[in-house]
This record gives sequence, C-alpha cells and structure tokens, in this order.
Amino acid sequence: MGGGPEVPLRGREKELLLCVLPWPESTSEKVIKEITDEFPYIDLHYVQEHYQNKADRGKVVIPEELYKRARVLATLSWLPPSASAVPDLDLIQFFSAGTNHVAQHPIYKDSEIPLTTASGVHGPQIAEWVVMMFLIHGHHYISLYEAQKRKEWVNMSGRTVRDAVGQRVGILGYGSIGRQVARVAKAMGCDVIAYTASPRTTPDSKKDNGFIVPGTGDPDGILPSAWFSGTDKDSLHEFLKQDIDLLVLSVPLTKATTHMLSTEEFTLLEKSNAHGTYVANISRGGIIDQPALIKALENKQISGAALDVTDPEPLPSDDPLWSAPNVLITPHVSGGTEAYAERAFQVLKENLRRRRDGGKLVNQIDRKRGY
Amino acid sequence: MGGGPEVPLRGREKELLLCVLPWPESTSEKVIKEITDEFPYIDLHYVQEHYQNKADRGKVVIPEELYKRARVLATLSWLPPSASAVPDLDLIQFFSAGTNHVAQHPIYKDSEIPLTTASGVHGPQIAEWVVMMFLIHGHHYISLYEAQKRKEWVNMSGRTVRDAVGQRVGILGYGSIGRQVARVAKAMGCDVIAYTASPRTTPDSKKDNGFIVPGTGDPDGILPSAWFSGTDKDSLHEFLKQDIDLLVLSVPLTKATTHMLSTEEFTLLEKSNAHGTYVANISRGGIIDQPALIKALENKQISGAALDVTDPEPLPSDDPLWSAPNVLITPHVSGGTEAYAERAFQVLKENLRRRRDGGKLVNQIDRKRGY
Repeated sequence: MGGGPEVPLRGREKELLLCVLPWPESTSEKVIKEITDEFPYIDLHYVQEHYQNKADRGKVVIPEELYKRARVLATLSWLPPSASAVPDLDLIQFFSAGTNHVAQHPIYKDSEIPLTTASGVHGPQIAEWVVMMFLIHGHHYISLYEAQKRKEWVNMSGRTVRDAVGQRVGILGYGSIGRQVARVAKAMGCDVIAYTASPRTTPDSKKDNGFIVPGTGDPDGILPSAWFSGTDKDSLHEFLKQDIDLLVLSVPLTKATTHMLSTEEFTLLEKSNAHGTYVANISRGGIIDQPALIKALENKQISGAALDVTDPEPLPSDDPLWSAPNVLITPHVSGGTEAYAERAFQVLKENLRRRRDGGKLVNQIDRKRGY
Repeated sequence: MGGGPEVPLRGREKELLLCVLPWPESTSEKVIKEITDEFPYIDLHYVQEHYQNKADRGKVVIPEELYKRARVLATLSWLPPSASAVPDLDLIQFFSAGTNHVAQHPIYKDSEIPLTTASGVHGPQIAEWVVMMFLIHGHHYISLYEAQKRKEWVNMSGRTVRDAVGQRVGILGYGSIGRQVARVAKAMGCDVIAYTASPRTTPDSKKDNGFIVPGTGDPDGILPSAWFSGTDKDSLHEFLKQDIDLLVLSVPLTKATTHMLSTEEFTLLEKSNAHGTYVANISRGGIIDQPALIKALENKQISGAALDVTDPEPLPSDDPLWSAPNVLITPHVSGGTEAYAERAFQVLKENLRRRRDGGKLVNQIDRKRGY
C-alpha cells in the first residue's frame, strides 16, 4: 500500500504507481518508503503475484478499474491487455534484466509506452560468485574443506597457493557484471583487460550508461589497462593471446557468441598462459563448446573452469562434464540475492526521478533493437 | 649468484648482499634481477638452506670468509655468530614477519645492526582467505559443492544469498591484512569500520607506515567510515555494538587480546546484528575463548565462523569445534603463497633504496619494543 506522508501536492494529482510483483511487499519496505517520501504525489499500490511454476507468471488477475488509472507500472511479467486499456500509463519498469518473456505481448509490439528493465541489478552478486570461485581455485579450498570434513588438521606446507596479486583478468563482455568483477579484481591487485563487441576508444564510449548499484562497477570504464574489441574470430583470438589468468565470460548469447570458446580457443589459451587460464562462465552454457571444454580440462590446457551455466540445463546426471577435472558447477544460481527486489526498486526510483525531471530514462528498451 | 651487469661503479666498491633462504633462488629470479639491475654495486650471493624440520632452521653452515665480508644479509633464520664476526654488516632483512625465533640471539640482543622484517607480505593472501570464506558463507557454497558431488542440478530457488553490498565489515586490528580486507570489501560495496589499540585521529596517524604490496591495502587509512580504539573492554564493546556483519580478527596475540571474544562479546554481537555476525579469525586461536565460541555457534548468536587458527594447533580430531555448526576450519594456511619469497625480496629492494638514499628503513624493529 503506501502513499507517503500527506504533504501538499502543489496542485499535482496523486498518480497511481501499480506494482505487480511476486515478492512480499515487506522485502522492499525500506526502498518503498524512500519512494513514497521522495515522490509524495505518488500513490503506490502493491499486488503480490503468487504462482507455483514459471509458466504461470503474469497470469494474476488485476481489476480493470485499478490498472486503467495507472500512471506507472512496476512488474516482473504481468502486463495490461493493451495500450488502450491503460490510457495514462507512461512508464513500465520491468523487474527482470531482459524482456524476452513479454516480447510477443501487444504492449511490447504495438504500443509506444516506454519500457525499462532492471539490467544492472545482477552485477554485485554475480561478480561475487566469480571472485569466490577464482579464490576457491587459487587457494585450493576444496581440499581444505574435505580435510575439515575428516576432522583432519592436514599439513599443507607443500601446497602452492597462487594469490591474485599481479594476475591478469580478461573480461569478455564489459557490462555491469564484468565491470564489478573488474572493480573487485583491481582491489585484489590484479590487472584487468576488457573485450567488447564495438570499439571503446573515447572516454564517453567507455562509460556504463545503464543502472549501476551505487558504490560498485566501473561507471567511467577506467579500470582496464587495455581494451580489445571485435565480432570476428581474429579479434577474439588477439584478446585470448594476452596471457589471461582468469577469463570471465559475460557476453549475451547470440549467434556470434555461440561456441565462442572451442578447441581452437583453448589451444590459444594454453599457448599464451603457462599457469593455465581459469575460465568462469556466468553467461549462458552455449557460449562454450562443452565437449571441447571437457577435453581442454582433461588435457590440462586450462587450469580449471567455474560454470554457473551449462548446455543443457539442468545438466543431466550422466553428463561427462560433472566428472571433468578441475571443474566447479553450480545450478544457475549466481544471480540470486535477498536484495533483488529492493535493488530493482532502486532502478524504478531512479526512473521516477528522471521522469519527474525530464531526463533520459535508465535501461530503456529500444524496441527495434530488442534490448 | 648474480651481481648484475658490469656497469661502471663510479668509485663505489662492490658490496656483498648475502642471502640465506630456504627457497630455490629460481623462485625469485625476476626480483633478484631487478635488484642487481637497480644496484649495480651489489654482489648478490645466494645460499639455499635445506632443512626437514622447523627446528633445524638456521643451522646451515656458512663459511666465515663469506659472511665476514657481508654488507647486507637477507635471511629467514640463520644469523652470524656475533656482531664482531660481521664488521661491515649494516642491514639484516628478515624474510619472516616476526623475529620471535631469533630474539635470544646475540645479534638481536647485543648488537645495534638494523633489523627489518617482511611484515606486510601476508596482506593479500590472507585478505583473500577472509573474502573467500565470507563469500562461501553468504552464497551457501558448501551446499552447492555437495550437490555437485552428487551430480545433482538442485533447484535452489528458495535459497537466500546475502551479497556483500551494504554489509558492514568491522576490522579488529587495522594492519596490513585488515587494510587489504578493507580494500576488497569496499570494492564489493561494503561499509568498513576499523578498531585500533591507539586512537587514530589525525591523517598522519591513520597511515600504514610498514611495507605495502604495491596496489593493495589502505596506505593512507581512508577506507574506514569510522574508527574506534582502546585497550579496555568498554572500548571494544562499543565497537562490537556497531551492527557488524563480518568481524575480522587481525590483532596480535598479547595478554590484552587473549580471549578478547568470549561469552559477553558474543552476546553483544547477537544483540547488535539481527542477521548474525560472521566471525573470521586469521590471527591466533587464543584471541577467541573457544568453548564460548562453540556455544555461540550452537545457540546461533553469530551466523558462523571461519577459522584459520585454533587453540590448540593442530586441533585434535576429537575437539568439539570440528562439529560446531556453521564453522569453516583451515589448518593455519592462509599466509601461504607461491609469491612469498618474491614479495619478501620486494621489501629488501625497498630497504636497499632507503639505505642508498639515506631514508628511514621500512619495517625496522625497535629492539626495546620487540617488534
């Protein structure tokens, strides 16, 4: 519910902000209060959507008399039936990073209502997953954990920990996740290099224009010591020859990025880095040619891999990837965080500010481009 | 061996730098070349010391005609018999962080030869250990790892990851390790508060005057949002009331810090932080009253503990600490790194510079104070 303190509205009518979200309102209490305090003319109405299966997302029934008054909609999946049903709606803030799940909806296809996403809210937790896996690998934590389970104080004096100082982190896809990996890696004493599809030669082109969780990321693109770019194999190979210690895959899955890492690329990595590159994939399983990865692991062409995504998902229990050496697999969980809804509301808050002040919205979808 | 390129010495005689160290010379190749390049008047002589047991450290036999010419000694444990045996020696660079193991030696007790330590070289790897454990805890990695072992793609949608953004890290003892934890924690979006024995109210007093691995730490002490200090219980308790999410114990073990965390302190932590404080100890086991810790874990007064040190060490296999809930134990390994010798040589390099330029040495021991 909400609505904020009853301060004079200076002639402005109350505007309905309709929230249709699967989380309990209480998980976002703090930021909802911030919103209703900052925008006293906003009347926030929260509907919690309940569903068991993902397929039922967005099927909640919202009374017409409610949505037809809405000025702003915050939603994960639910949408009003058509643009004509929401004559006053001038902003739809999605709480997902993408909008594939609603791309066929009339509101998406036939209306011009500005759509914004929650892109950027995954940066911190996924970057933490990458850093955690990199440290577990470098500090051989798995063998320490197994010793603890045996209640054994093992003598580890012969082990060779490789700490992060001076290691080179290569980030394939320098978006909100890659930038936050860069920030933490730099703090650990690493060198960071970035790869992007289009060249980033000017200071302006290096900037992150999307939503950034405050205090994280690389807003101005100042952390990489070198930038590489291209959409062709030669450009990618040039990047992979840079003696990369940790290779982070944070590119979207497209035709061009499918099986971007395959036999040829693992061979290049092996030649370039004597220690063996560690590969972390938090993007989509299809980025990697998985049988080629298994061979690269078996032949020690790379030092290991951390995978939050596989091909297919779920990974069948008889898939040989489970038994490959030096691989850590998690079931597509790196984006999860208690703070998810709260953080997506921060994007909404930023967009309510820009809507009020007349600025360009953050994370606005270009319907033609599709993201 | 070494000696650097034969460049004109401008009238300066070659000076013998004697290294008596347990690592193969090849592990420090790069930095040794840097030293012999930068100080062409130095003749570096490397003796690798071999021993099976720690008790045999420093028992290597070095020919008298070698050490009596030495101007600088780099050593882990070996020392010449007396000051009169090394008439020209004007610097002893220890490759250990402390010098307890030689505190009874005549060179330590009866000479005035400047002694410097390798304090500061542990910062990065121990900070990484702390960050790794904190992430493993927050991301529930142990259950993910166990699922991987079962080759099970588990549905983790119900799990509650708590990422680091906005969490408060309280660092008890703001030395080289604590400062590097602070640097990484800030990059992850945490708030950092520091506790020191003596107050740090001026910019100068906040500085780290010891050796710092380049690109790491908090040289100027600018990262904490608040500083606390004191050697009494009330001061410590004031700090523990600050709603700390991750409490890092990085103080030396002294009479005053023995059992610094006991029943009373765990109760304070519980009252102050509703999520439950996570405690990381990389100092000495004796800092914590261990039976009180076990109770605090069992009663969920804290959310968990990561311990690289215990009381006693090794921890006997029947010690109840092994079975306490939410505890991760490693066998005093957090200081280990492949880069250890290389990094200690960096301290030596810095001191050779200061010796040449007439500056104050870094990490010099005050024999009266004992460190």
